[in-house]
Amino acid sequence: MTDISSYIDAHLDEAISQLGEYVALESVGAQGKAILETAQYVKQLLSEVGAKVEVLEKEQPGHPVVVGELPGDSATTLLLYNHYDVQPAEPFDLWSSPPFELRRDGDLLFGRGISDNKGHLISRLLAIKALQDASGGTLPVTIKFLIEGDEELGSPKLEEFVKKHKERLASDVSLHEGGGVNPTGRPLVSLGVKGIFAVQMRVRTAVRDSHSSIGVTVPNAAWRLVWALASLKDADERIRIGGFYDDVKPPTEQEELLLRELPSEEENLLERLQLSDFVCGVRGYDYQRRLIFEPTCTINGISGGYEGKGMKTVLPAEASAKLDFRLVPDQDPNDIAVKLRKHLDSEGFEDVRFTTAEGEFPARTDASHPFVEVVRSTAREVYGQEPITTPNAPSTQPLHPMMSILGVPMASAGISNPDGRAHAPDENIRIPDFISGTRHVAAIIERLGEA
Amino acid sequence: MTDISSYIDAHLDEAISQLGEYVALESVGAQGKAILETAQYVKQLLSEVGAKVEVLEKEQPGHPVVVGELPGDSATTLLLYNHYDVQPAEPFDLWSSPPFELRRDGDLLFGRGISDNKGHLISRLLAIKALQDASGGTLPVTIKFLIEGDEELGSPKLEEFVKKHKERLASDVSLHEGGGVNPTGRPLVSLGVKGIFAVQMRVRTAVRDSHSSIGVTVPNAAWRLVWALASLKDADERIRIGGFYDDVKPPTEQEELLLRELPSEEENLLERLQLSDFVCGVRGYDYQRRLIFEPTCTINGISGGYEGKGMKTVLPAEASAKLDFRLVPDQDPNDIAVKLRKHLDSEGFEDVRFTTAEGEFPARTDASHPFVEVVRSTAREVYGQEPITTPNAPSTQPLHPMMSILGVPMASAGISNPDGRAHAPDENIRIPDFISGTRHVAAIIERLGEA
Repeated sequence: MTDISSYIDAHLDEAISQLGEYVALESVGAQGKAILETAQYVKQLLSEVGAKVEVLEKEQPGHPVVVGELPGDSATTLLLYNHYDVQPAEPFDLWSSPPFELRRDGDLLFGRGISDNKGHLISRLLAIKALQDASGGTLPVTIKFLIEGDEELGSPKLEEFVKKHKERLASDVSLHEGGGVNPTGRPLVSLGVKGIFAVQMRVRTAVRDSHSSIGVTVPNAAWRLVWALASLKDADERIRIGGFYDDVKPPTEQEELLLRELPSEEENLLERLQLSDFVCGVRGYDYQRRLIFEPTCTINGISGGYEGKGMKTVLPAEASAKLDFRLVPDQDPNDIAVKLRKHLDSEGFEDVRFTTAEGEFPARTDASHPFVEVVRSTAREVYGQEPITTPNAPSTQPLHPMMSILGVPMASAGISNPDGRAHAPDENIRIPDFISGTRHVAAIIERLGEA
Repeated sequence: MTDISSYIDAHLDEAISQLGEYVALESVGAQGKAILETAQYVKQLLSEVGAKVEVLEKEQPGHPVVVGELPGDSATTLLLYNHYDVQPAEPFDLWSSPPFELRRDGDLLFGRGISDNKGHLISRLLAIKALQDASGGTLPVTIKFLIEGDEELGSPKLEEFVKKHKERLASDVSLHEGGGVNPTGRPLVSLGVKGIFAVQMRVRTAVRDSHSSIGVTVPNAAWRLVWALASLKDADERIRIGGFYDDVKPPTEQEELLLRELPSEEENLLERLQLSDFVCGVRGYDYQRRLIFEPTCTINGISGGYEGKGMKTVLPAEASAKLDFRLVPDQDPNDIAVKLRKHLDSEGFEDVRFTTAEGEFPARTDASHPFVEVVRSTAREVYGQEPITTPNAPSTQPLHPMMSILGVPMASAGISNPDGRAHAPDENIRIPDFISGTRHVAAIIERLGEA
């Protein structure tokens, strides 16, 4: 490990310069910018460490995927999942410097995508180079790369892509796109994600708005929507859609232990958001259990009728809402869509229509899998602190295709910091985190070779 | 009546020219335009028929009120209530000609305020002149005028004004601001109005929006608002606020008869708005009973979180709604405000705040009052058709101060047509309706003198 660390230190500036080139490619998926150019750049990066690389098409809609393979000395194969697309940089005027020019300020590096997710790939490639240098060019395990180009758009067609290239991508274990440290510097190891089922809901009761005085006889779209929404979830936060909880897996004994070890974020969050309390007044274990193991039903937006200043005595003919359901293993977004329609119909809301805006499966690695201990023990060694291990994040990433189709356990290891501002202006990473994350990935690869 | 009709015909052009002057004064209350100038103009109009007139101040906020008196030969006093302010004319580009220039096109006269409410005053003054001409200058009853300047703003402080000038305004009967005919030319006689209690409702759960993934633990303002609203009214349209219906007067036998005589507007409305049905599937008598005798609780607008294109996985910290309650006799907007607060608190929605945006009392004249028969029988004679008599309109006008404080029965008689577009571009009246309405008011005054 000493050699590895020295190599990383010695080649840090080179890696940062490479990261600068990568950040300069404005691969904003939502704007269809610089996608092919960036895929070619990633192909070149992987080729430079000796990987056999191809840029493959995804089904439409879907940007090209860079797939590579770097053979190793053992039978074990590690899959590295990353993405080369980034979030839009708007609003530009909230950035302290141009978002597509890497800027260094002391130990901080700024740029769009530097944390999510370009820095992670550069870090992983540096770890590979360090290992190659230490061993005279070989690697203890085979490494495969899956670098997609539309993660920020919800990874359309990734499921189909992984199915189609199942043989080529076959692996034993996998690191997902990132990872990092908490505010006190403890490394974060996440073993999965929630899925998502997002809908746009709409009610139309008449061809045009009416004067509110006839609201006593003419149906009101805003009321229909309010009643339909209220039928979905009670004020006790229990989701009332028939069969919604059928496929929810309760925590295992080991997962319960992990939950109890999670540091409390509650007081901090109550103060930061100035909340009077959490829903259902949960604290401690109950808080963590809700956050990690409970599915959600969240109104993201609601709209209808007159929303301007003052009053307008109008009866709205149309109202709409946006909702997302965060799903936990083994809920299925397609199944929830069917159950939602059935619920609305059975409650008398046939007039309430919805279209699915996004559907992603949840995914969770079994905490007892030996790979989890590899990632945790190496984190403990590299960071000198006990890792924080979450059975799954409360948020969503496209891990299901790999975990379900390839059958690989996945964990996180990476370079992000708690104020990294992914998706926001002044996205950043810290150089010490970049170094630690790189050492951690190198240590994982070494440890996998020892198994 | 022959003399009266001839006088009206002979002086029609003169009246239209006067109406043109009145319309040209841009007395848009909401924009504070030409208010004092218009009040002075009205004073001059009333002086010209011989009334003793004063322009009096209302308490703030409130525009000046023109009050006049024209003595008559009998002990009976008729109060004419009108207003000189108009709705804003925007959007100007939807008008076929400049809104503040009276335009004649065949039998149609166009202009902002021509129907609501300037044409009615000019018509009433023409009726008075015709009667004076026929009798050599005298009138059969005393006529008092109450012409206010901010009816379109909800008549702030009219209650206080009428209280303060109770002696001066004391009358036996009253005509409210307008009236007119239905699509088949039958005269409309309205005996009252619903009141209104309008609120702006708001919930704030945190200082800022959060990522929707923490919606499982962090309170969501949109959910709080939806649940609070759903607690106010069920999908069966029953308002659940404790004591809400306590003061609702059921129809008298005579009012029930009037309801049964109302022409059906249901098929027309279903088609015009392309409704699948009315609320609770009401038709016929049940429809009319709901429309006239039931109070409402209507969402005018609702808003919260992300309402733009596509999805945003956000957890809203703030949400708001605008609601109006149309009240029926003897409901009291101040009492409903107290009951609404009590309801929200008792249902666990202490965090849901509201401010009152408008409060007006309902008012309904007893259908058995002899004045109602005066207005109905004269309408029958003038129009040659059976009048349509409504115990109260489903909408709101400030009749309560006169009916409650002065204790006068009020009915409508006027010049409007069903496509008069009050409050909208191309507001208009038809000359035959102007003539009939003027003859009707003259006939009412004559008949009151015979009593």
